[in-house]
Amino acid sequence: MTATHMTRELAEQPRVLARILSATPPLAAEVAAHIRAANPRFVLFAARGASDHAALYGKYLTEVLLGKPTGLASPSTMTAYGARPDLGDVLFVAVSQSGASPDLVESTATARDCGALTLAVTNAATSPLATTAELHLDMLAGPELAVTATKTYTAELLTLYLLVAAWRGVEPTAVAGLPDAVGELVTGHEDALDSGVSALLHAHRLFVTGRGYSYATALEAALKLMETCYLSAQAFSGADLLHGPLAVVEPGFPVVAAVAAGPGGRAMRPVLARLADRGASLFVVGDPAAVSDAAAGVPLPIGFGEDVSPILEIVPLQRLALQLALARGADPDAPRGLSKVTETF
Amino acid sequence: MTATHMTRELAEQPRVLARILSATPPLAAEVAAHIRAANPRFVLFAARGASDHAALYGKYLTEVLLGKPTGLASPSTMTAYGARPDLGDVLFVAVSQSGASPDLVESTATARDCGALTLAVTNAATSPLATTAELHLDMLAGPELAVTATKTYTAELLTLYLLVAAWRGVEPTAVAGLPDAVGELVTGHEDALDSGVSALLHAHRLFVTGRGYSYATALEAALKLMETCYLSAQAFSGADLLHGPLAVVEPGFPVVAAVAAGPGGRAMRPVLARLADRGASLFVVGDPAAVSDAAAGVPLPIGFGEDVSPILEIVPLQRLALQLALARGADPDAPRGLSKVTETF
Repeated sequence: MTATHMTRELAEQPRVLARILSATPPLAAEVAAHIRAANPRFVLFAARGASDHAALYGKYLTEVLLGKPTGLASPSTMTAYGARPDLGDVLFVAVSQSGASPDLVESTATARDCGALTLAVTNAATSPLATTAELHLDMLAGPELAVTATKTYTAELLTLYLLVAAWRGVEPTAVAGLPDAVGELVTGHEDALDSGVSALLHAHRLFVTGRGYSYATALEAALKLMETCYLSAQAFSGADLLHGPLAVVEPGFPVVAAVAAGPGGRAMRPVLARLADRGASLFVVGDPAAVSDAAAGVPLPIGFGEDVSPILEIVPLQRLALQLALARGADPDAPRGLSKVTETF
Repeated sequence: MTATHMTRELAEQPRVLARILSATPPLAAEVAAHIRAANPRFVLFAARGASDHAALYGKYLTEVLLGKPTGLASPSTMTAYGARPDLGDVLFVAVSQSGASPDLVESTATARDCGALTLAVTNAATSPLATTAELHLDMLAGPELAVTATKTYTAELLTLYLLVAAWRGVEPTAVAGLPDAVGELVTGHEDALDSGVSALLHAHRLFVTGRGYSYATALEAALKLMETCYLSAQAFSGADLLHGPLAVVEPGFPVVAAVAAGPGGRAMRPVLARLADRGASLFVVGDPAAVSDAAAGVPLPIGFGEDVSPILEIVPLQRLALQLALARGADPDAPRGLSKVTETF
C-alpha cells in the first residue's frame, strides 16, 4: 500500500492554500458585493460529507463574525417532502467538491425558486451545482483523485474564510501565514504521530471531540478515520459528549481532541478533565499546554486565531488517518464501498 | 439488574402522550397566538442530548409544514465567542427536560436580548430556562428518574407537533390515535426484540440510520444504545452514510434503520440496498415491507403520517436498548459517568 493520491494531495495543501490566498480575494470581493447588495438576514448552508463539515465551519464564521443567524439545510425537506419555504432575505450556500450530487443541485434550484440568493462553492466550475446557483466561488484545489478529501477540505475552509472576510470588508491578514504554517504540519511531528498510530493500531472505535470552531475538525477527523481505517470514529462537540456519550468511555478508550488556543479550547478543559477521570487515552491537536497534558499530540503553530485554527488542526489528523490506514494494511486511495462522486437523491 | 426507573418510564409513555393530547392543545394555542402575532421569518432551536434530537424533529416540522427556514443553534457562538446576532424576526426555541443547563439558559437570555421571541419547552415550569424565555410550554411528562430519557423524549416530540399544529391553525387529528398505538409498542414484538438483542449481544459498534423525519430517530436510538449499553452507535442520515461512513460496513456489521412509510422511507431504499450489498445485518423499525426484507425488525402501526412516525419509531428502539443493556449486564438506570442534569457551559 502506498496511497499515492492521498499522500500527494495531503502534501499539496500548502501550495493550494497559497494559490487561494493569491487568486480568491478579488473573486470573493465580487461575490461579496452581490451578497451585500442583497443584504441577507439569514444564511443556510447545504452540503454532504466532508463539505458538510466545512459548512459547519462556515456557520460559526457567519454567526460569530457577521452576526447572521445560520442554519445547516436538511436537503430532504425540499427534495423528499416538497417543502417550498419562504427564502426571501436568505443566502443559501451549497458546498461540494464535485458539484454533482443530485440532491444538492435540486435543493439549490428550489432555494433559488423560493427567493434565496444562491451561491455554490465547488471545485468544478462547470458542474451542475455551479451553474444552478446564481453565484459561484471556485475552491481552486485542482483535481482531487483520492476518494477521501484532504486538500479540498482545507480549500473549502479557506475559501469560506475569505468570503466572510470580503463580506465584512476586512483584509484577510490573519490567514497570510497559513501556507507556511501548514507546510510545517505536512512534515515533522513523526514521534507524536507514531504514538497516535500505536495507540489506535488495534482499536475498533474512538471518540473525536472539539468545541466551537474545532467541532468541525472533530467531525472531519472522524470521517477520515472511518473512510481510511474503517474505525467507528464518533465525533461529538465537547458539550454534547457530556450529555450521554461519556458513558461509553472506559479506561484506555481512545479519544482524539482538537483544542484550540482560545474560548472554544478553554471550554474543552472541563471535558478533557472528565475524560481523564474516566481513564481515556488522549491524543490532542492544538494548544501546546493541552498537548503536554495528553498521552500524545501535535502542538500547532501559535499566533492564529481560533477562527483560523480548523485549517491547521485537521492536517495532523489527516496524516494520522493516512499513516494508521497504511499500518493497518488498508488502502486509503480505495476505501471499500466508496467512489469519488456520491450521488444521493 | 432490573432497571426499575427506565422500565417504568418507558411503559408510562402511552399515559403521558394521552395527558399531553388532553392538556396541551389550549396551552399550545396560547403560545401560538404570541408567535403568530410576532410572525417570525426564521426559527432557531437550541438543545443538548436527547432534546437536540427532538429539536431536529422540530426543524423538519417547521421547515416542511410551516415553510420557515430553520437552524439548530450552536450555543457556543453566543456563550464562548460572544456573538450578538441580529435575531429580529427569529423565534428561538430552547428544548430541555431539566431546563437547568447553564449554556442553554445563557444562550436563551442572549437570544432574547438580541431581539428573538424566545420559547422554552421544558419538563420543569420553574426552571431557570422556563423563566428566562418569554414563552413556556410544559412537556407534562411528570418526574423522570432514569438518567436516560424515554418518556420526556416522546413528550418533547408530541409537544412540538402540537405547537406547530397550533401555529398552522390546524386540528391535531393525525395524532389522536398515538396513545393506543404506542400502547401496542411498549409490549409485544418479543421475538423481534430477542433477535435484535442476540444480534447485538457481543457487538461493540453499529450504525443507526434514517432519512428525513426519521433521522431524529436514528440519532436518539444511537444515544440510547450508547448510554445504556456503552456501544459505539453511530447515527447517520441515509444520505450522509453513503458519503464516507459506508466504508466501515463489513459483512455482518449491525445496522439499525428507521424506515417510515413515506417519502423519507422511500429515500432510504437505495441506502438499504447498498448496505445489503455490503453484507450488513439489518434491524428495521417502520414500514412493514422494509421490515420483511431485513434480518429482523418491528413493523409499526400503519395510518400515521411520516411527520408523526418518529413518536412511534423510537419506542421499540428504547426497548431494544433496555433489553440489550440487561442482557449485557449493564444497569440502564445508572449509566457510568453520567448524572441526570448535565451542566455544560
